[in-house]
Amino acid sequence: MKLDAPLKAGEVALVGAVPGDASLLTLAAAKLIGNCDVVVFDALVSDSVMDMADPKAEKIPAGKRGGRASARQSDICETLIRLASAGKRVVRLKGGDPFVFGRGGEEARALMESGILFRVIPGITSGVAAPAMAGIPVTDRAVNGTLAFLTGHEASDDSRMDWKALVEAFPVLVFYMGARNLPEIASRLLGAGLSRTTPVGVIYSASLPNESYSEGTLEAAKSGVLEAKSPSIVIVGEVISDRTPWRE
Amino acid sequence: MKLDAPLKAGEVALVGAVPGDASLLTLAAAKLIGNCDVVVFDALVSDSVMDMADPKAEKIPAGKRGGRASARQSDICETLIRLASAGKRVVRLKGGDPFVFGRGGEEARALMESGILFRVIPGITSGVAAPAMAGIPVTDRAVNGTLAFLTGHEASDDSRMDWKALVEAFPVLVFYMGARNLPEIASRLLGAGLSRTTPVGVIYSASLPNESYSEGTLEAAKSGVLEAKSPSIVIVGEVISDRTPWRE
Repeated sequence: MKLDAPLKAGEVALVGAVPGDASLLTLAAAKLIGNCDVVVFDALVSDSVMDMADPKAEKIPAGKRGGRASARQSDICETLIRLASAGKRVVRLKGGDPFVFGRGGEEARALMESGILFRVIPGITSGVAAPAMAGIPVTDRAVNGTLAFLTGHEASDDSRMDWKALVEAFPVLVFYMGARNLPEIASRLLGAGLSRTTPVGVIYSASLPNESYSEGTLEAAKSGVLEAKSPSIVIVGEVISDRTPWRE
Repeated sequence: MKLDAPLKAGEVALVGAVPGDASLLTLAAAKLIGNCDVVVFDALVSDSVMDMADPKAEKIPAGKRGGRASARQSDICETLIRLASAGKRVVRLKGGDPFVFGRGGEEARALMESGILFRVIPGITSGVAAPAMAGIPVTDRAVNGTLAFLTGHEASDDSRMDWKALVEAFPVLVFYMGARNLPEIASRLLGAGLSRTTPVGVIYSASLPNESYSEGTLEAAKSGVLEAKSPSIVIVGEVISDRTPWRE
């Protein structure tokens, strides 16, 4: 089956949309959102991406956007099943990749268990897109043969993570949703043994017109001197000194 | 600057091309390869992607393909600088994302140091695309709030990796270039304390017509019962049991 074949009646596509510039959508994603009956879209999907959706398609928000409350995951799954069962051609549009911190696995499982035809179109995940926009190579042969993606929630009070093990195995860490918990993330990493001068990069609103980049040390991040607004990707590690600021 | 704006004379674009189905290219990548003077392409870039390149563009291979020897990284950097200095509009097309185990950082740095105008277009990295094709959610809220990408080379004899720390911090591991060293990878993970029955998924040639998926345990991977051909992405972790085989 071709990934970009037109959707059938009653079919759902779980589609990754990079959170930002619409030119980073895949050809398959552009084709599917351009020809469907319904788009169920996440909060982080940009307006420029939504502008590419079929003008005749119904648009259903499924996340915090414009002050609306976030939909519950079970409600989203039920919506997808209801629409597909009614014969609609449904695109479920996620910010970033559906399966990377996107809960797409839960949606895929719900669809499979209901016997609904579906497909998965991966997208560029923001942990990859944001560093690229800032010119930070997330891997460098001199620094790391490993790469860790985490969510900022890992640094919350009930963290079960072994932070010492983390920093021992991974010279480069990329945090999704890292803005709100930045001081806690920095505090955990310092506690796990990283140096106070370890560089931290913060990419806000990657690939969008209001994108910005700021940089500091773990110490500055802990104390709040290095600030971060949501949505930001936070990178920690020596690759930051390899930065090639190609957009400035 | 718009990511998909036409290249200027003497400009280089470091462009990610998913290794596989051309419909997973980004809109920006498709536009840039369709209108340039030269494409310098990696071995893992598929024929269907190369078919989308400007018919008039010169095509220069920069990797093992059709029996040719692999170009040295320094030679590739020099080639890019030479072409751009001659006023060519150059696309450097990488399998996967330029900055995720792609050595794009070295190319960006060489271009910056030579004063060459360049841009970076991220692509879907195979560690994300391959699991999506197999229906494996690489993150699941019940299993992992972290995700580790590694290369299979990490399991070579001179590994400096702390494997115990790795498995303690990361319930899900995604290995790039994991086929050749699969028994060694499994052996290291078993030595680090993972259970013999930990599931292992192998996705070969993701999104291409000859894609295949096989699955087994760490024990089977160690003994060679679970085989893997190159190029494959190898996933280790309990998310494999969440698999929704949507392509079968």
